[in-house]
Amino acid sequence: MAQQLEPIARMVGQLARLPGIGQKTAQRLAYHIISLPQEDVHELAAAIWQGRKAIRYCSLCGNYAVDDTCALCTDEKRRNGQLCVVRDPRDVAAMERIREYKGGYHVLHGTLSPMDGIGPEDIRIKELLMRVGKEDIQEVILATNPDIEGEATAAYIARLLKPMGLKVTRIAHGVPVGSDLEYADEITLAKAMEGRREI
Amino acid sequence: MAQQLEPIARMVGQLARLPGIGQKTAQRLAYHIISLPQEDVHELAAAIWQGRKAIRYCSLCGNYAVDDTCALCTDEKRRNGQLCVVRDPRDVAAMERIREYKGGYHVLHGTLSPMDGIGPEDIRIKELLMRVGKEDIQEVILATNPDIEGEATAAYIARLLKPMGLKVTRIAHGVPVGSDLEYADEITLAKAMEGRREI
Repeated sequence: MAQQLEPIARMVGQLARLPGIGQKTAQRLAYHIISLPQEDVHELAAAIWQGRKAIRYCSLCGNYAVDDTCALCTDEKRRNGQLCVVRDPRDVAAMERIREYKGGYHVLHGTLSPMDGIGPEDIRIKELLMRVGKEDIQEVILATNPDIEGEATAAYIARLLKPMGLKVTRIAHGVPVGSDLEYADEITLAKAMEGRREI
Repeated sequence: MAQQLEPIARMVGQLARLPGIGQKTAQRLAYHIISLPQEDVHELAAAIWQGRKAIRYCSLCGNYAVDDTCALCTDEKRRNGQLCVVRDPRDVAAMERIREYKGGYHVLHGTLSPMDGIGPEDIRIKELLMRVGKEDIQEVILATNPDIEGEATAAYIARLLKPMGLKVTRIAHGVPVGSDLEYADEITLAKAMEGRREI
């Protein structure tokens, strides 16, 4: 038995496919899992599988949902005429954490990236246009990431929405709160200057 | 939805119970798992659960096994009169990796630790004595860890076995191969001097 037992090797192999988990870590995790009571391991495996099975995308906004539409889309109070456009469901979670924004969301499930062959028809832009046409939307807030793809996607969507006569905004760029100016990169600093406001 | 969906929260909670996986990592892993195709997640969950279910302890040596006795214990060639005593199955795997040792094993499943209330009856010492009495054993190699508990356990077992008239050995302590003398701790270095051999 110079090799691992097949069930252990299989477990290690599967764990090592997860991001940030190398062969060594996978081995350590597998040995730990094997040392656990069967009930605990069953709970772990069930949480992974049932969790994946239970989650789908909201048919309206594209956020994670357990039903056809997500909890945010079914909440009447959130239909305030605002739509916040983000790249993926994790960004909805991030935005919700600030507990400031009270409107709806639209998840694109990606950003435009010609280099990777991702064009406008590969992300949920058509769905956004349909929602804007159908729902009573006054403002679309473009909250894609402040990177090349995110900016390009925001610019592209803005161009499509502007003629529809609604307010299209982009989240502010600037120096992060609590950070040190000295360590801010030039582009961020330039954007912070550009977006300065009277106090 | 300021909180996470229940199936996601449950997955994060379970993943965060694994050693070395904090809340943030668990969240990252859960979001990754949710983004995977269902088949992939099923394979992962199955590998974890089936793996745990398939593995038991060899009734003879205490090593990991898929059957009643492990592959090493059923291998006639490994019954050469030597038994290597280790703390847990991972140590068997480590020892097998050197491809030098050709004898049998005995896994204690722990080391003596009065502080933690672990006494001789809590680890597989009685089973070791029974094997030594029944099987044709000439040498018992004590390969518990070179730490306080490991040393105490080795000393305790040696005291029990010596009167039975067999060779009892302890793995050598010394400076690890490829290491730098400058960084060796004093105790290791003292042990290395003590165990020096003529060349």
